[in-house]
Amino acid sequence: MAGESESGVPIEPVYGPSALTGWDPMERLGEPGAYPFTRGVHPTMYTGRPWTMRQYAGFGTAAESNARYRSLIAHGTTGLSVAFDLPTQMGYDSDAPLARGEVGRVGVAIDSLDDMRELFDGIPLETVSTSMTINAPAAPLLLLLQLVAEERGVAGERLTGTTQNDILKEYIARGTYIFPPRPSLRLVADLFAYCRSELPRWNTISISGYHMAEAGATAVQEVAFTLANGVEYLRTALAAGMEVDAFAPRLSFFFVARTTLLEEIAKFRAARRIWARLTREEFGAEDPRSWKLRFHTQTAGVQLTARQPEVNVVRVAVQALAAVLGGTQSLHTNAFDEALALPTERSARLALRTQQVLAYESDVTATVDPFAGSYAIERLTDEVETAVLALMRRVEEYGGAVSAIEHGFQKAEIERNAYRIARATEAGERVVVGVNRFTVAEEEPYQPLRLDPAIEERQRARLARLRAERDPAAVAGALTALRAAAATTANVLPPMKEALRARATVGEVCGALRELWGSYEPYGPGEAW
Amino acid sequence: MAGESESGVPIEPVYGPSALTGWDPMERLGEPGAYPFTRGVHPTMYTGRPWTMRQYAGFGTAAESNARYRSLIAHGTTGLSVAFDLPTQMGYDSDAPLARGEVGRVGVAIDSLDDMRELFDGIPLETVSTSMTINAPAAPLLLLLQLVAEERGVAGERLTGTTQNDILKEYIARGTYIFPPRPSLRLVADLFAYCRSELPRWNTISISGYHMAEAGATAVQEVAFTLANGVEYLRTALAAGMEVDAFAPRLSFFFVARTTLLEEIAKFRAARRIWARLTREEFGAEDPRSWKLRFHTQTAGVQLTARQPEVNVVRVAVQALAAVLGGTQSLHTNAFDEALALPTERSARLALRTQQVLAYESDVTATVDPFAGSYAIERLTDEVETAVLALMRRVEEYGGAVSAIEHGFQKAEIERNAYRIARATEAGERVVVGVNRFTVAEEEPYQPLRLDPAIEERQRARLARLRAERDPAAVAGALTALRAAAATTANVLPPMKEALRARATVGEVCGALRELWGSYEPYGPGEAW
Repeated sequence: MAGESESGVPIEPVYGPSALTGWDPMERLGEPGAYPFTRGVHPTMYTGRPWTMRQYAGFGTAAESNARYRSLIAHGTTGLSVAFDLPTQMGYDSDAPLARGEVGRVGVAIDSLDDMRELFDGIPLETVSTSMTINAPAAPLLLLLQLVAEERGVAGERLTGTTQNDILKEYIARGTYIFPPRPSLRLVADLFAYCRSELPRWNTISISGYHMAEAGATAVQEVAFTLANGVEYLRTALAAGMEVDAFAPRLSFFFVARTTLLEEIAKFRAARRIWARLTREEFGAEDPRSWKLRFHTQTAGVQLTARQPEVNVVRVAVQALAAVLGGTQSLHTNAFDEALALPTERSARLALRTQQVLAYESDVTATVDPFAGSYAIERLTDEVETAVLALMRRVEEYGGAVSAIEHGFQKAEIERNAYRIARATEAGERVVVGVNRFTVAEEEPYQPLRLDPAIEERQRARLARLRAERDPAAVAGALTALRAAAATTANVLPPMKEALRARATVGEVCGALRELWGSYEPYGPGEAW
Repeated sequence: MAGESESGVPIEPVYGPSALTGWDPMERLGEPGAYPFTRGVHPTMYTGRPWTMRQYAGFGTAAESNARYRSLIAHGTTGLSVAFDLPTQMGYDSDAPLARGEVGRVGVAIDSLDDMRELFDGIPLETVSTSMTINAPAAPLLLLLQLVAEERGVAGERLTGTTQNDILKEYIARGTYIFPPRPSLRLVADLFAYCRSELPRWNTISISGYHMAEAGATAVQEVAFTLANGVEYLRTALAAGMEVDAFAPRLSFFFVARTTLLEEIAKFRAARRIWARLTREEFGAEDPRSWKLRFHTQTAGVQLTARQPEVNVVRVAVQALAAVLGGTQSLHTNAFDEALALPTERSARLALRTQQVLAYESDVTATVDPFAGSYAIERLTDEVETAVLALMRRVEEYGGAVSAIEHGFQKAEIERNAYRIARATEAGERVVVGVNRFTVAEEEPYQPLRLDPAIEERQRARLARLRAERDPAAVAGALTALRAAAATTANVLPPMKEALRARATVGEVCGALRELWGSYEPYGPGEAW
């Protein structure tokens, strides 16, 4: 709508100096790398080095995905990001009945230590940081990675990367949960505590608004619900007895970047300022690292179109620029054919090249936060901040994120906006180039990547071999120890690690906890995915 | 180089409020649409309507080009931009010996009124504005268009568009001149005067830095030499007896947009401010329309690569965004395959889609000049302005643009920079993605558009028919009248129009003037192209 951003905050046709009357740059901005971090979490930002180019990838078996990672590294990607298939994300092995037809489809199938070893074959874990989009089973997957690192003599202190581990947004938007919210939160806190001693450089969580945005959230909803989830994690870990500065520095975030460049830049800047004030003023954090909202960004998949898919290259470039001008720490740029299928090697490479052009051919890395001081962007940053804080207060009125989730608040708010967008698109008030305007009579054929249908059988055969070879008594004993820990308040990660080392599968480990903690099934069994 | 822009102006790693100490927004910016127009020439800019999407196109005969224009209009282009082939640009007919192998190659071959009629067949001249990249023969081509309009009953007051007509930059960078500088300037002034009475809404000239940039000019050189040429045109028309406010409102400009987003935005803003002050303060213009630097932008072809050509889609998107954030009035986005060949219909469409995504899916049109007030951009704008003014003073020390051209000053300065860029690229200090970094072992094959070799023969046959059909005495008489006018100070356009109406060719009209005025041949005959 004219005069309004996508989130409904006002955008005036002209901003001049009067837009910033009474606006104090020292209070609102500070220096880059200093409280309240509006201008970025590092004093030098990209003038020192560019963001991490971290392309999300994974499909088929560990072997296929390993080949794609090697290709991405050869083409200049600077961090890995593992996509897991749905069975893995839901804590089921590849031979589970529910897994049929889904093995290796939207990501890689990882059942056991054998798979994880193959996934990282030849990839130096001590230098390449790895992000894993895994939530309910974040603990077993992280432990598998640690086990592979240990086999190679890479100490836990050297392992860098991120587990998404953000279960709350699964209930709101993404749907790959296993357990109900409260035991899930306990598992999150156990992982925080475990990493504190074992993997001190690991980002224990990536509190994610991305999937809310994909489900239809506005920029304001995305940030408000994500930061509200962040508050819930802070409270959970504090309730579990941790000091805020013992875990808050390892929290990280994950946002979307849309084509609405100005609002997105304002959004990222506002999010940093809100989080800094919250951790410092409300939670009493004293370590400046606790105040810093560090985030990964992915370009908005939901904005890509299956029609005239080559136009997506343009959208992704604009989205990526929004992330960079907003000060992201790492970035995934979508491949232009993701609206059609898994990206091909060529489209994945072009997505990476998009980042490289921004980093090496443009001058947006030459100076920190180039929009700082802009009448329009500073006002929009303030407007987004105000709107986010108002929405966070509504979550608080429910008693916090978990209670609001249990009341279906966030999901309903997001769905309302998704509906609004769909209506406006249908009515043509919202232009989608190539879809409801600038269409072509005949689309050119496009040959997407097709998964080999034999992959599922290969993975099942591999799993059958594992089950035949391993020591069943060792596995059973380790799973019993895991269940015992889970029944108390003891940290479940150490016994879980022993089970995985004994070649228990991800499905078995999650199954053991499922027995104790139950499943979250808001829609009744079988409808979750 | 770190800490320096492409033009060598300083870029600090961080700009804060202190960067604008003593900086007065009222003096440096003013309101959008008001002096000194730093923020744009219109008060509402794109919040009212987006820029004109004007895709440069033309190849083969008039019939082929007409089909491409119709396709572009069907896909949403909002203005035409005609590319002429080299013979037409040099004032030679398609059957001239020098034309062999070049007919219809880099643009459309237009020899006569017959061709012009076919070129615009079915295109509404009263609503679609047309830009023509034509310089030495700008007058005959504009007159041909006027004749077609008259045949259709479209009055001169309704015809909108632009003739490039910027002969000075041809001597500096582009090379499609015919006559020596001084008679060329007289022709420019004649066209100004003619349009004043006959085509009052026509942009009489597009003073162009684009080709200097393609030849290797920095952003500062591009603007300085272009505005210095503008000064020369102002002086020429004043010397011919026109009042400044009688022609200055119809001058327009043409710049490049590079991937160096920040410097480019600063460049466009600085150029507007300099031109406004110059026309008002030095030339005493009183009509605010005389102060406004209105410009077309083309994305930088020289930055496109033949290797991994799909990456060019990203470059063009960033370049286009620079033009839009810099406040361009119209924009041509290059097709990604232009480094390889003429764009195909599909690549031309994708180039247009790039503009449509920016205009309709991003929010950069929601507020005017969103960077205004930015510490970095305002400082860079000032730095670019200072550097441009210094270089313009050097041109003045030569006695103005023409004298500097005769001394080879601008060309040498640009060539020095082209050499610097080539050296830095070769040394790898300057990254070109896919060329000297992030290369691939094997490039995928790409099938560019191939011109039908029969086109040249078809065009020659068409011309032979014209010569056989027309009234030779009428043509000869009209050319005699043209020569007679050219020998005095009378305006040559009215007799030229009569000659063209009698179906004299562009080559014959230019030839008549060539007889009188001579050719400019700095390298000796035959080496010009």
